[in-house]
Amino acid sequence: MKRALFIGRFQPFHIGHLESVKHILSTYDEVVVVVAAAQYSYTMENPFTAGERVEMVKRGLGPLYERSYIIPIDNVPSNYEWPRHVLNYTPRAEAVFSNNRFVRMLFQEYGYRTYETPLVEGVSGSIVRRRMAEGGDWRSLVPPPVASLIDEINGVERVKSLYAMRVSMRGERFEG
Amino acid sequence: MKRALFIGRFQPFHIGHLESVKHILSTYDEVVVVVAAAQYSYTMENPFTAGERVEMVKRGLGPLYERSYIIPIDNVPSNYEWPRHVLNYTPRAEAVFSNNRFVRMLFQEYGYRTYETPLVEGVSGSIVRRRMAEGGDWRSLVPPPVASLIDEINGVERVKSLYAMRVSMRGERFEG
Amino acid sequence: MKRALFIGRFQPFHIGHLESVKHILSTYDEVVVVVAAAQYSYTMENPFTAGERVEMVKRGLGPLYERSYIIPIDNVPSNYEWPRHVLNYTPRAEAVFSNNRFVRMLFQEYGYRTYETPLVEGVSGSIVRRRMAEGGDWRSLVPPPVASLIDEINGVERVKSLYAMRVSMRGERFEG
Amino acid sequence: MKRALFIGRFQPFHIGHLESVKHILSTYDEVVVVVAAAQYSYTMENPFTAGERVEMVKRGLGPLYERSYIIPIDNVPSNYEWPRHVLNYTPRAEAVFSNNRFVRMLFQEYGYRTYETPLVEGVSGSIVRRRMAEGGDWRSLVPPPVASLIDEINGVERVKSLYAMRVSMRGERFEG
Amino acid sequence: MKRALFIGRFQPFHIGHLESVKHILSTYDEVVVVVAAAQYSYTMENPFTAGERVEMVKRGLGPLYERSYIIPIDNVPSNYEWPRHVLNYTPRAEAVFSNNRFVRMLFQEYGYRTYETPLVEGVSGSIVRRRMAEGGDWRSLVPPPVASLIDEINGVERVKSLYAMRVSMRGERFEG
Amino acid sequence: MKRALFIGRFQPFHIGHLESVKHILSTYDEVVVVVAAAQYSYTMENPFTAGERVEMVKRGLGPLYERSYIIPIDNVPSNYEWPRHVLNYTPRAEAVFSNNRFVRMLFQEYGYRTYETPLVEGVSGSIVRRRMAEGGDWRSLVPPPVASLIDEINGVERVKSLYAMRVSMRGERFEG
Repeated sequence: MKRALFIGRFQPFHIGHLESVKHILSTYDEVVVVVAAAQYSYTMENPFTAGERVEMVKRGLGPLYERSYIIPIDNVPSNYEWPRHVLNYTPRAEAVFSNNRFVRMLFQEYGYRTYETPLVEGVSGSIVRRRMAEGGDWRSLVPPPVASLIDEINGVERVKSLYAMRVSMRGERFEG
Repeated sequence: MKRALFIGRFQPFHIGHLESVKHILSTYDEVVVVVAAAQYSYTMENPFTAGERVEMVKRGLGPLYERSYIIPIDNVPSNYEWPRHVLNYTPRAEAVFSNNRFVRMLFQEYGYRTYETPLVEGVSGSIVRRRMAEGGDWRSLVPPPVASLIDEINGVERVKSLYAMRVSMRGERFEG
Repeated sequence: MKRALFIGRFQPFHIGHLESVKHILSTYDEVVVVVAAAQYSYTMENPFTAGERVEMVKRGLGPLYERSYIIPIDNVPSNYEWPRHVLNYTPRAEAVFSNNRFVRMLFQEYGYRTYETPLVEGVSGSIVRRRMAEGGDWRSLVPPPVASLIDEINGVERVKSLYAMRVSMRGERFEG
Repeated sequence: MKRALFIGRFQPFHIGHLESVKHILSTYDEVVVVVAAAQYSYTMENPFTAGERVEMVKRGLGPLYERSYIIPIDNVPSNYEWPRHVLNYTPRAEAVFSNNRFVRMLFQEYGYRTYETPLVEGVSGSIVRRRMAEGGDWRSLVPPPVASLIDEINGVERVKSLYAMRVSMRGERFEG
Repeated sequence: MKRALFIGRFQPFHIGHLESVKHILSTYDEVVVVVAAAQYSYTMENPFTAGERVEMVKRGLGPLYERSYIIPIDNVPSNYEWPRHVLNYTPRAEAVFSNNRFVRMLFQEYGYRTYETPLVEGVSGSIVRRRMAEGGDWRSLVPPPVASLIDEINGVERVKSLYAMRVSMRGERFEG
Repeated sequence: MKRALFIGRFQPFHIGHLESVKHILSTYDEVVVVVAAAQYSYTMENPFTAGERVEMVKRGLGPLYERSYIIPIDNVPSNYEWPRHVLNYTPRAEAVFSNNRFVRMLFQEYGYRTYETPLVEGVSGSIVRRRMAEGGDWRSLVPPPVASLIDEINGVERVKSLYAMRVSMRGERFEG
């Protein structure tokens, strides 16, 4: 059983992420999708809760789910300790995939083989969120079941409100 | 017994806050004043400790105190979990008042009725702090007993130092 | 303005606690009632939430409330750092009252004058809770408004359930 | 889409747990298996890491996995806040299943419908662990793929060592 | 430069610990003395603060100090993550020495070579503390400079008080 | 025994720091070098782990080490509580030295005498890091044994990568 970690925030899960999973599963038996920064939600960069993101990933994966794990994992203050923290919550894996250079750097220091996933032109979490906030076409950038879920939870309205309020990850909640 | 929460940081407690409490107590039997971001102090945005702020609120409320609770509550990393955290430390209440849109949003998601309080023109915590830092007239913006307390603890000098050092909420404490 | 801290868990607030507050207020202008171990609830030793305990204390104090603060404070892992943590959330005070020897020891090490409060024979938090659990007379041990509040929140039933399940402060929540 | 939470520690996942999932999936479309006390491992009561437990559950579920989520969730100090914490990391659900009375009590207080799952006579996590420690027959109490995984990670040897050392959940790590 | 970790709680640093350091320095160039459970103090098992213990070790080591590091490190909830946490705060080392089997087990799982240190008959931290509490001869069990330091900080009186109050590591601070 | 604290982040330990230690040891018997912000590493401002920094300081101090302690200490959220936190992990000291005004302010509030250390023109942690990042001469700004250590751990390459990725102390680890 060959297994790899795929690490992202999935705010939201988009078609680039889906391509990454397909790419990983063309070589590995199973993939562990790590939903990082799990404790954060209701901010511009992290509008969706970990539970919502986990549901997005499962729905977005469709039949690929049977070869996948989806595991939300909190950030921790220490970059040096973070890979060990991830591995505490994940099934054993041989390699780490992420499009984030820094994630790869930290896992290399820990002793793992790391890989980039192929980028899909013009798709990223921040692009999808900005289109939601500005009324642009975000639906074509996410798998259809993810769009449905976002509609069910009024996700677009939430993103618009957070952008209007400019609630950042470390936003001041209580100015008064 | 009808009761409402009133949520702010009270850095410091000013005449706008006092008006809000009066407004709430015109409809509710009791108010629970939540001193949010309680763990922070000695920064530009949060110069005063929770204990100092609690004392400001009690003194500022005067005879209204007998119908009031004053409860300091820490921020927590998860926005989604924060309303439940507040409710853990507060007596039962039916509604939430805050001039902070984001606070209202989070409590609405939790299932509470939320309200704005009437704004007093030209008064806000950041205005009071800036006037302290710049030697302007801040005394007219706070209830007289709050001004006395700020004098007793050398609050203006503290705010000036923090502004001069530009110590932000996430300030680097230890550059060297 | 002479002020003292009075530190307890108030699970629940009983007539001995009320006597202590009266005793303190015979010498001091104000008392700061510290509701310690605030984060704990729904255990045998800590059945009530901090918010419930704060409400108990206010109701139990009656007219003494206008000379009192009631402030919930979490436990922290370090005994050495705990007095400073308490002082972060409380108005300035000159002395500390507690019937807990260890609390007094820690504040003495920090440099405070500490005092015992006069004990009321046959009353303690654990006696009240045990009587609740066993169907004994607990009402005569708490101020009448506290008894009313405990009735409103079905407190006796809660304590009975927790005793039946033997949920300790560090109880295993998830054996399966 | 009707969905329920199923909450346990799964130390390890045994045939009683599997029956519970089948029972839940006879009524609900999907189940969210919450691997509680996720941060603990290498103790007598919690020998396996969250990642190992997640893998056990997926393997043990077999084809039922496509209708299941498996989500590790840390304990938090506040019992009152814990249900909200669980819901932060889980897809929306209508009901909560657990054989732990206390878990059900906390979710009832939060406002959820809760249910027991049918008990399988003579099977529990502590029975399985004790048999591992004492050289008894534990294999018949877990689904065969779980037994295989436990063999792969030398789980029996680990449990024996932890029992020999008597490492409890709050065990002293550093006596010297 | 060959370096080894030596892990203990040093409550207090005794002659057995000193022998261990000598033993390690007979093979390694340097030793990193890890003062574990650093956040705990003022309990029966952990009477001394991390700072006091660090001072004990330096004084106790005498001229060996120039080949030693002394580093206080907090406990963390996850046993699996704890070795990585230790390594975050310590200079690079090749091996781990500890008389605690469980410490060795956790570092073996992490991939380190681990060793026991030679036991000195009749000396352990708990023996020293009990003798302090009961008025026995504890001085012959610690290096003379450690005894001096314990005298300077009134350590024996502290231990006696903690034993009299029976303050355990997870002791109830606030019964009332 | 007269002792002083010297507080910095030591990212990395440079010749200005060494001068400060010499200055302190000209008046005090011993110095306690506090490696602050210990939990942070692998960022632009904090590239090195606490363990690496501790090793830098010991090597950089050379024979002065026998009169020095080197103690890594985490940041905590509360500025008011931070001096007490530092003192929990450090041997008793009479005074605090730091070139950081804010550090001195917090210790003054706590009741300590505080002092600046003499600045060495043109040397600071941020200057050294920027030179590393930009290929400038950083070696002349650190004691030779510190330069050797930085070479052994490929520190320059690490700093360059972190600058290229612009990983700040609160950097987004997981954009995707």
